[in-house]
Amino acid sequence: MRMVDLIEKKRDGGSLSKKEIRFIIEGYVQGDIPDYQMAAWAMAVIFRGMSLEETSELTLAMAQSGDQLDLSSLGGRFVDKHSTGGVGDKTTLLLGPMVAACGVPVAKMSGRGLGHTGGTIDKLSSVPGFRVELTQEEFLAQVKKIGLSIIAQTGNLVPADKKLYALRDVTATVSSIPLIASSVMSKKIAAGAQGIVLDVKYGSGAFMKTVEEARMLATTMVEIGKALGRQTIAVLSNMNQPLGRAVGNSLEILEVADALQGKGPQDLVEVSLELGAWMLVAGEVVSNVVSGKERLRQSLASGAAWDKFLAFLTAQGGDAQAVADRRLRVAPWNLPILAESTGYVQAFDAHKIGILAMALGAGRVTKDSPIDLGAGVVLVKKAREWVVAGEPLLQLYASNQEMLAEGRKFAQNLAVVGSEAPELLPLIEEVIL
Amino acid sequence: MRMVDLIEKKRDGGSLSKKEIRFIIEGYVQGDIPDYQMAAWAMAVIFRGMSLEETSELTLAMAQSGDQLDLSSLGGRFVDKHSTGGVGDKTTLLLGPMVAACGVPVAKMSGRGLGHTGGTIDKLSSVPGFRVELTQEEFLAQVKKIGLSIIAQTGNLVPADKKLYALRDVTATVSSIPLIASSVMSKKIAAGAQGIVLDVKYGSGAFMKTVEEARMLATTMVEIGKALGRQTIAVLSNMNQPLGRAVGNSLEILEVADALQGKGPQDLVEVSLELGAWMLVAGEVVSNVVSGKERLRQSLASGAAWDKFLAFLTAQGGDAQAVADRRLRVAPWNLPILAESTGYVQAFDAHKIGILAMALGAGRVTKDSPIDLGAGVVLVKKAREWVVAGEPLLQLYASNQEMLAEGRKFAQNLAVVGSEAPELLPLIEEVIL
Repeated sequence: MRMVDLIEKKRDGGSLSKKEIRFIIEGYVQGDIPDYQMAAWAMAVIFRGMSLEETSELTLAMAQSGDQLDLSSLGGRFVDKHSTGGVGDKTTLLLGPMVAACGVPVAKMSGRGLGHTGGTIDKLSSVPGFRVELTQEEFLAQVKKIGLSIIAQTGNLVPADKKLYALRDVTATVSSIPLIASSVMSKKIAAGAQGIVLDVKYGSGAFMKTVEEARMLATTMVEIGKALGRQTIAVLSNMNQPLGRAVGNSLEILEVADALQGKGPQDLVEVSLELGAWMLVAGEVVSNVVSGKERLRQSLASGAAWDKFLAFLTAQGGDAQAVADRRLRVAPWNLPILAESTGYVQAFDAHKIGILAMALGAGRVTKDSPIDLGAGVVLVKKAREWVVAGEPLLQLYASNQEMLAEGRKFAQNLAVVGSEAPELLPLIEEVIL
Repeated sequence: MRMVDLIEKKRDGGSLSKKEIRFIIEGYVQGDIPDYQMAAWAMAVIFRGMSLEETSELTLAMAQSGDQLDLSSLGGRFVDKHSTGGVGDKTTLLLGPMVAACGVPVAKMSGRGLGHTGGTIDKLSSVPGFRVELTQEEFLAQVKKIGLSIIAQTGNLVPADKKLYALRDVTATVSSIPLIASSVMSKKIAAGAQGIVLDVKYGSGAFMKTVEEARMLATTMVEIGKALGRQTIAVLSNMNQPLGRAVGNSLEILEVADALQGKGPQDLVEVSLELGAWMLVAGEVVSNVVSGKERLRQSLASGAAWDKFLAFLTAQGGDAQAVADRRLRVAPWNLPILAESTGYVQAFDAHKIGILAMALGAGRVTKDSPIDLGAGVVLVKKAREWVVAGEPLLQLYASNQEMLAEGRKFAQNLAVVGSEAPELLPLIEEVIL
């Protein structure tokens, strides 16, 4: 078998057999297939797509390209959750303690932020002492003990995806539904989940700009999951404006702490309840999503979720008391952006807010950029809220005046105020299962 | 400017500016743009194509990526000729001496054979002592003195094409008309020609299988030539069966010697006269192709072309007397393939004959394969000729019995004999100028 023939086959619209897909992924990981052949193949996939059968095999081959987590020692069903990435998306941190408090263990590997989207691991890093890297033994022991651990991706998990994603990033071959779907699903499958709940976001702040694209991606991932014997549920959620009010790492942890104590922003809570309820369904502790939401609300009301969060932070070396006392470091320079007229906020573009947070130091331009865990933006007002001229719309946080001034320039005119209350799209568009 | 953005632009169907194309080619030659980005870009070009403006700029940027020949010292107009490659295609060796004998200097760089197609340089190498590599000074001095030199591509001519072609070969990105056209034309332009005559072949033995594809390629090359200020003429010629009767290096030199002495096969002579006449038109020594052919015929009849050929061989160190005496080495083992029935030969597939010659040792499987200059095939009969059962159809030549046996197996059933004389397509389909 020669890679050049397989590239040609895909270029001409053919379907690759299981054996051929294995040959590609194994050859690429072993270094027998060079980057330039892989790049040409990926571009051919951009134009020709892949069948469900091809995509499932690609997913499985990638999942099996490195270590695979064995979660059988945890006992029972184990459910994972993944978000395709957004702005102000702290749902993992809110639903993780709730779901764990309801008896479904959460053993999650998360990523760091890149570009305008944030990452759960960065957010947790703003808690003093918190260890984002545990050994596999520590990780599993903690899940066994308290039902919840969240760590940075570790070890040699899905090396094929790591290598291929880095290549796609510099060859304009990211935007392919089968390649995105197999990248996400291979990681979930290698991480050992029996049930997978996917938060597929669409809108200005998401990777998928339209609901149609998001639906196609979600459907593909759900079908891959089914083909590989994992219960998979995808929730399409709106990312036209940030979720919650805080965007920035320590600012978001503080918002999560509020939400776990019953004072969370409505949109963040709604999305977290929806996703969390599906996790309880997949974890087989409730029979439907309505009872799931009820159980999760109880975990909030009883304080069980909040206690679980504090126990989780403590277990990973974090200063839980600092979170409870709201003593996280927030960037020292701050500045409000004031409304110039009175009326309803029409929209806050999530993508632009993400870029603003990055300009203030809260996000990474490249994978190796340092970030300022205390910087960010708070949306004092959100779309459809009433604002009086001179009142603050946004509050910016940065560690020096230059970045603050830069952010201020960018933030001017971000919000449009009008006399009519805008119609908002539903937060949850659809559930695909 | 970032290469990833230019790949994306092309992927999404955009047109690249002159500056962007320069950036790509210069960056690639200098090693700033890695192979994997170039491969992804080439695959995007396969799907999206390039405009004439883009293709012309690509051609010019490649032509200027290395040394460029300055032929001004030759005086007058200088005309080059290129064939897209075929089986038994020895037209350069026939028309070169004719055209030179008519007063248009021929300073040509040629290639070696690859796959089922032969190369002029290999054919010349079968003449004892013949030097295919001259210094640039020797090359120009010889053209000045006798009006004809043919050498292997030399020096740092069009390094961008060398590098890009090698990459395309292993990434299934060869079959793109703008990439093929710019590859050919960049070499002609760097070689300094003011006039360019292109032999664009179509049919089973050619790279372009259909006349439509060949026409598209020819039109693109003619338009590139015009856009870059070079008179360019393309002749579409039929390559469904080999040109002439000999396929194999020394066998073809012997056929050229016959043709230059007035005993050439009709198809080879017809194509050579057509191409040569256009070279005389482009060289401004005749005003039309009819007078051009007349002048070339005179050069054959007078012996001037044959004398020029011998002078040319001698000037490059070759044993011209050996050619005149037909003393070239021909492989010692030979075998006829006999007709099993009586009738008209229906067809001889040029591609299969090329593969047969390769199996006998006359062609290269890869760029570095050794070849047997004495091996090959002679088509004793060609399509539309009458054969009696038991008469030879082909004569095979190889240097050992194993290869001969291998060739015999392959050669069985290559010719179909039928009772009706087949209609043959015209040898010259069209001239594009």
